[in-house]
Amino acid sequence: MKFSFLPKEAKFFDLFERATENALMAARQLKELMDTYDNVQERVRLITEREHEGDFITHYIMDQLNTTFITPFDREDIHHLASAMDDVVDNIERAADATQVYRVMEPTAEARMLADTILRSTEVLHMAMPLLRDRPNMKRILEHCIEINRLENEADRVHRGALVSLFANPRDAVDVLRWWDIYETLESTTDRCEDVADVLQAMVLKHS
Amino acid sequence: MKFSFLPKEAKFFDLFERATENALMAARQLKELMDTYDNVQERVRLITEREHEGDFITHYIMDQLNTTFITPFDREDIHHLASAMDDVVDNIERAADATQVYRVMEPTAEARMLADTILRSTEVLHMAMPLLRDRPNMKRILEHCIEINRLENEADRVHRGALVSLFANPRDAVDVLRWWDIYETLESTTDRCEDVADVLQAMVLKHS
Amino acid sequence: MKFSFLPKEAKFFDLFERATENALMAARQLKELMDTYDNVQERVRLITEREHEGDFITHYIMDQLNTTFITPFDREDIHHLASAMDDVVDNIERAADATQVYRVMEPTAEARMLADTILRSTEVLHMAMPLLRDRPNMKRILEHCIEINRLENEADRVHRGALVSLFANPRDAVDVLRWWDIYETLESTTDRCEDVADVLQAMVLKHS
Repeated sequence: MKFSFLPKEAKFFDLFERATENALMAARQLKELMDTYDNVQERVRLITEREHEGDFITHYIMDQLNTTFITPFDREDIHHLASAMDDVVDNIERAADATQVYRVMEPTAEARMLADTILRSTEVLHMAMPLLRDRPNMKRILEHCIEINRLENEADRVHRGALVSLFANPRDAVDVLRWWDIYETLESTTDRCEDVADVLQAMVLKHS
Repeated sequence: MKFSFLPKEAKFFDLFERATENALMAARQLKELMDTYDNVQERVRLITEREHEGDFITHYIMDQLNTTFITPFDREDIHHLASAMDDVVDNIERAADATQVYRVMEPTAEARMLADTILRSTEVLHMAMPLLRDRPNMKRILEHCIEINRLENEADRVHRGALVSLFANPRDAVDVLRWWDIYETLESTTDRCEDVADVLQAMVLKHS
Repeated sequence: MKFSFLPKEAKFFDLFERATENALMAARQLKELMDTYDNVQERVRLITEREHEGDFITHYIMDQLNTTFITPFDREDIHHLASAMDDVVDNIERAADATQVYRVMEPTAEARMLADTILRSTEVLHMAMPLLRDRPNMKRILEHCIEINRLENEADRVHRGALVSLFANPRDAVDVLRWWDIYETLESTTDRCEDVADVLQAMVLKHS
């Protein structure tokens, strides 16, 4: 038997799932941007829209926190989770926008690989989030957290290889700095996914 | 009717207001440094004094936490808030000092704009902090938090524009790296103000 | 008289001491790497092994948290402390590995000094951690936290000096970026030690 929540409480689950859905869409658009690299300006614009949607969801969660008497988890945990999800989408948008800021002609193979790891990380978050609804099985979230950690390690390895290539045969120092920053932004997006996993892990530990 | 606190408890409010007062002074000095850019060494020295004062206030709060039986908020929250305020002043000092480390000849327009956004962020913190004393009206802090978030977004936009200009027509790669780091430090100061707003927001949610 | 804990609880203290022992070994190996700079590849490999050992300890703590009914501290605090210790060793490994990624010919004097400050910071963590076992004397941890903060300030000063030298007479912009990142990674390791001190400080405040 599953726990049943009051309608007011269910709302938080809906909002968090909307947040992971939104992050997943942004990550998919980032991967497509890196893979095709056509209509770049329009593709970046669509990802910026995801970022605005993320802001909207975050503010809505905070408002609801503020006006709802009974919440399914501690208010601080809901606050942390919403902030952490917001940071994921912000980072995806920053990585996409960096192609414009730094006038990237063509993404490198490593940039594409990192976008792929980001997409897989958001897919795992998207699978983990609905398990919050189901208290008796909440522990299954932990397996997803392990996978997020594994993907973050994978991104670290790709990032390392990208730096080795970048510095092995540097032509233009300004270009090296550009790519150094783009790789940093891409890699740190998987760190932000890991932050979400950390909040989820702490919530599971508290409630099990 | 306002809540009344014991004298021992009131002390924490005094200390936090001293911390925001100190951050506001540091931010004002940073803006004057960037605007006038005269007597640079002396102006940076005064901001470093603010940083020492910030350290002193933080340690004093921690000491008081350690020897006071009843505190107006959870000890962890007081601890987080003091750390977050400390990080704001540390960042302001790092940004001011960067002009010395990197031997800046003249601040760019964007550096001045970021210093202005930092000043306005600390002004909002300075208005928000005294509301902690007033439990029935604590929720008014949330409006200030929204404004801090808005200012952080503004700083992001200025930062983005600064990078576009910097990389559009790069002359000297070392100079590009210098400014890249200065902009990063300036922009991250508004992130630190947002961290303070996040702690305040969590405290309001817990107590309302 | 000391508190006595159940065998299950004692396990957490053992694991945290194993984590600081591991961090101390990694920091010692980093300092030796920087001082001798011989057999670099083999020395980095040994530090990477420390990082794997750190991951193992962290996962083991999380597993134990998940299966132990009574824990000596709040689950969230144990979780935070384990994550923060993990980040210290990760950073040490990243700093060691950076010598390979950036094909460093010879460490600078400042890199050696930072490795020394990192070693001393982990020595202090190694002294502080066993005091968690001893509730009546837990407050003595706070003195160690003050020392960690002092060492972090020391690292900041060395870092500042390193940047001044690096940019005062730059020959090769790509080389400047390389060292900029290496110094950043070294310095941030003392920030991660400070994060551990912050978690310890919060735990002491909660329990005293």
